[in-house]
Amino acid sequence: MNQNKKVVLAYSGGLDTSVAIQWLKDQGYAVVACCLDVGEGKDLDFVKEKALTVGAVDSYVIDAKEEFAQEYALVALQAHTMYEGKYPLVSALSRPLIAKKLVEVAEQSGADAVAHGCTGKGNDQVRFEVAIQALNPELEVIAPVREWGWSREEEIDYAKKHNIPIPINLDSPYSIDQNLWGRSNECGVLEDPWTAPPEGAYDLTASLETTPNAPDLIEIEFEKGVPTALNGEKMALSNMILKLNDLAGKHGVGRIDHVENRLVGIKSREVYECPGAVTLMNAHKELEDLTLVKELAHFKPVIEKKLTEMIYEGLWFSPLTPALQAFLKETQQYVNGVARVKLFKGHAIVEGRTSPNSLYNEKLATYTAEDEFDHNAAIGFIQLWGLPTKVHSMVQNKKGETVS
Amino acid sequence: MNQNKKVVLAYSGGLDTSVAIQWLKDQGYAVVACCLDVGEGKDLDFVKEKALTVGAVDSYVIDAKEEFAQEYALVALQAHTMYEGKYPLVSALSRPLIAKKLVEVAEQSGADAVAHGCTGKGNDQVRFEVAIQALNPELEVIAPVREWGWSREEEIDYAKKHNIPIPINLDSPYSIDQNLWGRSNECGVLEDPWTAPPEGAYDLTASLETTPNAPDLIEIEFEKGVPTALNGEKMALSNMILKLNDLAGKHGVGRIDHVENRLVGIKSREVYECPGAVTLMNAHKELEDLTLVKELAHFKPVIEKKLTEMIYEGLWFSPLTPALQAFLKETQQYVNGVARVKLFKGHAIVEGRTSPNSLYNEKLATYTAEDEFDHNAAIGFIQLWGLPTKVHSMVQNKKGETVS
Amino acid sequence: MNQNKKVVLAYSGGLDTSVAIQWLKDQGYAVVACCLDVGEGKDLDFVKEKALTVGAVDSYVIDAKEEFAQEYALVALQAHTMYEGKYPLVSALSRPLIAKKLVEVAEQSGADAVAHGCTGKGNDQVRFEVAIQALNPELEVIAPVREWGWSREEEIDYAKKHNIPIPINLDSPYSIDQNLWGRSNECGVLEDPWTAPPEGAYDLTASLETTPNAPDLIEIEFEKGVPTALNGEKMALSNMILKLNDLAGKHGVGRIDHVENRLVGIKSREVYECPGAVTLMNAHKELEDLTLVKELAHFKPVIEKKLTEMIYEGLWFSPLTPALQAFLKETQQYVNGVARVKLFKGHAIVEGRTSPNSLYNEKLATYTAEDEFDHNAAIGFIQLWGLPTKVHSMVQNKKGETVS
Amino acid sequence: MNQNKKVVLAYSGGLDTSVAIQWLKDQGYAVVACCLDVGEGKDLDFVKEKALTVGAVDSYVIDAKEEFAQEYALVALQAHTMYEGKYPLVSALSRPLIAKKLVEVAEQSGADAVAHGCTGKGNDQVRFEVAIQALNPELEVIAPVREWGWSREEEIDYAKKHNIPIPINLDSPYSIDQNLWGRSNECGVLEDPWTAPPEGAYDLTASLETTPNAPDLIEIEFEKGVPTALNGEKMALSNMILKLNDLAGKHGVGRIDHVENRLVGIKSREVYECPGAVTLMNAHKELEDLTLVKELAHFKPVIEKKLTEMIYEGLWFSPLTPALQAFLKETQQYVNGVARVKLFKGHAIVEGRTSPNSLYNEKLATYTAEDEFDHNAAIGFIQLWGLPTKVHSMVQNKKGETVS
Repeated sequence: MNQNKKVVLAYSGGLDTSVAIQWLKDQGYAVVACCLDVGEGKDLDFVKEKALTVGAVDSYVIDAKEEFAQEYALVALQAHTMYEGKYPLVSALSRPLIAKKLVEVAEQSGADAVAHGCTGKGNDQVRFEVAIQALNPELEVIAPVREWGWSREEEIDYAKKHNIPIPINLDSPYSIDQNLWGRSNECGVLEDPWTAPPEGAYDLTASLETTPNAPDLIEIEFEKGVPTALNGEKMALSNMILKLNDLAGKHGVGRIDHVENRLVGIKSREVYECPGAVTLMNAHKELEDLTLVKELAHFKPVIEKKLTEMIYEGLWFSPLTPALQAFLKETQQYVNGVARVKLFKGHAIVEGRTSPNSLYNEKLATYTAEDEFDHNAAIGFIQLWGLPTKVHSMVQNKKGETVS
Repeated sequence: MNQNKKVVLAYSGGLDTSVAIQWLKDQGYAVVACCLDVGEGKDLDFVKEKALTVGAVDSYVIDAKEEFAQEYALVALQAHTMYEGKYPLVSALSRPLIAKKLVEVAEQSGADAVAHGCTGKGNDQVRFEVAIQALNPELEVIAPVREWGWSREEEIDYAKKHNIPIPINLDSPYSIDQNLWGRSNECGVLEDPWTAPPEGAYDLTASLETTPNAPDLIEIEFEKGVPTALNGEKMALSNMILKLNDLAGKHGVGRIDHVENRLVGIKSREVYECPGAVTLMNAHKELEDLTLVKELAHFKPVIEKKLTEMIYEGLWFSPLTPALQAFLKETQQYVNGVARVKLFKGHAIVEGRTSPNSLYNEKLATYTAEDEFDHNAAIGFIQLWGLPTKVHSMVQNKKGETVS
Repeated sequence: MNQNKKVVLAYSGGLDTSVAIQWLKDQGYAVVACCLDVGEGKDLDFVKEKALTVGAVDSYVIDAKEEFAQEYALVALQAHTMYEGKYPLVSALSRPLIAKKLVEVAEQSGADAVAHGCTGKGNDQVRFEVAIQALNPELEVIAPVREWGWSREEEIDYAKKHNIPIPINLDSPYSIDQNLWGRSNECGVLEDPWTAPPEGAYDLTASLETTPNAPDLIEIEFEKGVPTALNGEKMALSNMILKLNDLAGKHGVGRIDHVENRLVGIKSREVYECPGAVTLMNAHKELEDLTLVKELAHFKPVIEKKLTEMIYEGLWFSPLTPALQAFLKETQQYVNGVARVKLFKGHAIVEGRTSPNSLYNEKLATYTAEDEFDHNAAIGFIQLWGLPTKVHSMVQNKKGETVS
Repeated sequence: MNQNKKVVLAYSGGLDTSVAIQWLKDQGYAVVACCLDVGEGKDLDFVKEKALTVGAVDSYVIDAKEEFAQEYALVALQAHTMYEGKYPLVSALSRPLIAKKLVEVAEQSGADAVAHGCTGKGNDQVRFEVAIQALNPELEVIAPVREWGWSREEEIDYAKKHNIPIPINLDSPYSIDQNLWGRSNECGVLEDPWTAPPEGAYDLTASLETTPNAPDLIEIEFEKGVPTALNGEKMALSNMILKLNDLAGKHGVGRIDHVENRLVGIKSREVYECPGAVTLMNAHKELEDLTLVKELAHFKPVIEKKLTEMIYEGLWFSPLTPALQAFLKETQQYVNGVARVKLFKGHAIVEGRTSPNSLYNEKLATYTAEDEFDHNAAIGFIQLWGLPTKVHSMVQNKKGETVS
């Protein structure tokens, strides 16, 4: 038994983690509940109370919204982290921060272990456990839901027996996670990849059928790659993302339907809604298109892809991650300016972009009389650019006799 | 002088290449005009006649639509070739085929040279010239427009002097290229990246404001990565692309506004419309998400990016291109099945996908009682997956004493 | 119990797999021993007999040397597979072939299971098990050594009790694996990465101190990337590799001392000897340097690195592997010719290379009067090549006013 | 004419740049000669005087050895920059620094132009000109040798006519460049890739036939990736490299014979000698193998390859370069410790390595009773690691019915 041992539990207020409090007590642990506010928009005072009601010795709710925005969502934004070209890393992004806070609370409260409510087939168990081990390898990690292995019915029986309140929406078929960067949804009818996601699977975004018939035009200002003002009004990043979730969500922006490869080796079908994330990513990409030099623009995606995979695969605290971020940070000094975005019918269309660091030079690009580009330079360029291919053709086809 | 020399000119029927016929005659060449039908939807009989009228000794129009679809557009489709994440390679894709046909005509007609109508600051001059040199390094390449260096006024004066008809739409501010894979547009007001493209810049797609208020649902069937049937009806690929241009174009699908890095070192702002291409790419990607194993799905984008850059940069005939295509071809054997696409308000949303080669396994993915996934396997997996990060943390932070 | 069940065991003749025969019998299995000759140079008749002596119901020795050379070593050669820049994939390369043969024998003999002698911390367990599952997912996989978890003493006691002969070299501190592509060694004093490997750790190669004072010059001929003749004499690939192991080994070529990252998350220190492999790789690389066009030469390493990791990580039978090989195969058509190699003092130095497909053009490369390179072309090339950097500098530093 | 214009010339003291002084005077320029000491080991006082003798108005020799070591060679060392796997960037590395100093002298002396002595077919013209334009786009760049286009004989006639001394070694067939990072050699008999380089082509290294029969054992200490002490003695990096050039050169370390792809589209055959560079790179790589976590070790080569190509291709001052360096710098904090290197018969063999940041954990790696690795974890790991391949096989081969 674990008498006199203390565990810090990542607590959400739902059935699984409520039952986990009792189950951990059964194992002899004193349970400290810890709920992180990363912008999921729930009533967290209620969650805090509920933990105590169902048996926690202590209960914390920590507002980490701005830290999440600045240290995690911003990385995703600047790195255009789209896993498999589609998923902008909702849960994957919050897990390392939650793990960090759990470890901090564990160290402050002298706990011996940290617990999370993940099952044995998702990505999040990996993300939590690798992060926790990286931050404090002396802490034990417990995964009650994975360990008890109960069916839904057995879990409910156990809850009833211990007077743990059964949530009213228990018959919802979906499994949902949400933070300010977006909302993910799986399970239920979504498990059939031929079936279109029903409207009830969505919450942050309007259906295209019900979006307004007039667009909203907004201007987003960036300083060194950081969005700092919306329509000229300065605001904290977490506020801007939440505001854009409303604004772009109303126009149906950011619905994603994805059959993805999980880290644990299976494919799953997920539905995401990321109105703010998608709007900001579009705007940021367009400013980069204007301000990053070609070689940089063509290599940055290699960094982006790797960083996306590192985050998705739970390796935020691997030393490769800060090295990738060091590259990223160096590139963002040029990403200043304004993008004008039209929110309409599920689109966040960047219609205009301007920057003091713009490398677009109208006098070089124009086809008018203002043209300053040296057209003759192209002749020499083409000659050398194509020379390897030409020599190859001459040698392999034995056509032609002379070169250059 | 080039007395008794013959040149094959890529002829479009426009002012530049019409003037080029006369200009080449001035240099002593007999000019063979050659116009390729790659699906731009123009009246090509008229073009054929006009070439003779303005002085060509011979004039060809070659229907290359299905060859273009099968040998070029299909590669772009299967490789999801989006240059800089945005441009699906419209002109870049047709240039090597046009070059190939010009060289064939040149060889058949005993010509000494091939000519194209490109200026000195675009990508297409590179694509034409590298391709022609690769195919027959003995052929001279002439670029009259780049060489004469006239202003618009000087060119018109020359045309008038030689009775070359001035096209009626000469005052159009735009420079347009089109084939069945899409339509590109640059110049005029588009040269200001802060200005939204005006409706007049578009032709293949309806504006979101005017698209139908009811979606079209279509089913696209793929066999080994090749789209073979639309709504159950088998059709040639070129026909399917053109049909989808109509259908998806009506719903406003495939508008792209891109500030891009040209091969010749400058940034330019281009507007593209690719309704069929975007619809097919979305459908194909979703079938790959269902049928490609994780390692393949994660590495294929590396091949895609390189292939995209090779094509954009005029290196279709470099021996790297067939090597990349060999990789691609090997992967497509699994891409069989049907994607159901909702065309609506500028979107081509894949709502459902099904495949005999689907690797999505409901019994592994499900959270119901049907679950066949071994949840305990994750424990060992996480331990080894996170071990490098854990050892790193222990060593660098000197936290913890034992591993395991 | 597993009464009436049959297992095919990968049998080496050593203590571990001999004990495994008895241990599997204890579990109720009839054991079919299967030993693959992939060029390790042992007396395999003795091994075949020993299996029967210690209790196998059947015993096979399969000569797979030429198949190993043609289907596995050749891939490593053409892809220059150097894991972490140092290790040319000795054991990693033979595992998929051994797994394939085990599965074939299992299917022919109606076995229910396949067994291997790997421990729980190496790479080979992963390679065997992933391969076997890929080839026949219905076969059970058993890892007796990993399962019994005995200390060395317990294992010897068990062996003595069952009259299993204890090998004479049991006190060797090393753990060795060998095939025609090379020899790997770990354990013992090698576990201290500060200590130099003692001479006794090596077997295939002479020490630099004892190598001949006169070099051997050899010529290796390649056809489509395949080594076909040594000093003008045609020979089977497996013979050539073995011959080069002798010849280059005598000169001390191919010793490698590597602290490597295992797939299972730990670092280990390994010593390899690959005299034939290193000699052939050097020769092949030099012919590629002569015959592959620049873009291909610069991208092929991306394929090579991925293929190396796939093989090292036990994913030979993943569908990504044949796709990478399809790329590879396409590139080898040009790799024809002869490399002259000087074997001397641990080096395999390519001193000369010649090819009918050589892209090296003396008239382009020379600085003599024969020069056919157009020096003026460089001016235009440099202008456009440096243009992005120049515009960037002008914009970000606000130096200079005009471009061109 | 360019009356009253001033040009800063990169002056080497050789025939080409001596003639260039007079030639530039002919064009009306006042010539400021500027010679950089980057460790080529020549008598630079003589060079300084000679410039004035042949007509320069001013002559500078700048000692940039330590700056070159710290800011350029160190990057090459830490990034293991081996172009095409073979060439450790000798000239490519010094060009940006020379360009920087030329621009500084030009700005200080009020010059209008900068000149270099490169021909029109090498890489160095690109490196110089792109660098100069990036640093000060207002400066004109002149390439006299490329411009005058004389044969060797014409150049000598011109020199004689203007009393420019003809160097005594003018009949040397080779074209040589040298700095502390190494020595490159091309031309003459080297232009035949089948011919072995004659001994006369080498200068920094002894031939294997004449190297000592006893090895030297040295210890190199690194702090954050920087070599700081040799055999316990602290020294400046430039001194250490020069010292290692002597020490390792005596043992024949660092000869490279390379048929390489130039940026200007041709292949050339070059011979390099880099004894210090190769010794340091080997030592550094081994320390990284010990201290970098697997994910980092496997991704760093991607950065290294790109950085190598950027430097080779003259893009040191592109904004991509500092971004790649930011990644690199972040990784070097762990690269502390000592490598013991055996210099012998052309080899720099790292025999031992030790580090306070070592991630090699004997208790995890050992096969003795000390083993702390959890062997059972592998079972779960293998199951999930191989799951995609297994499901793929089951689906595509229709073998087996159940998973997991």
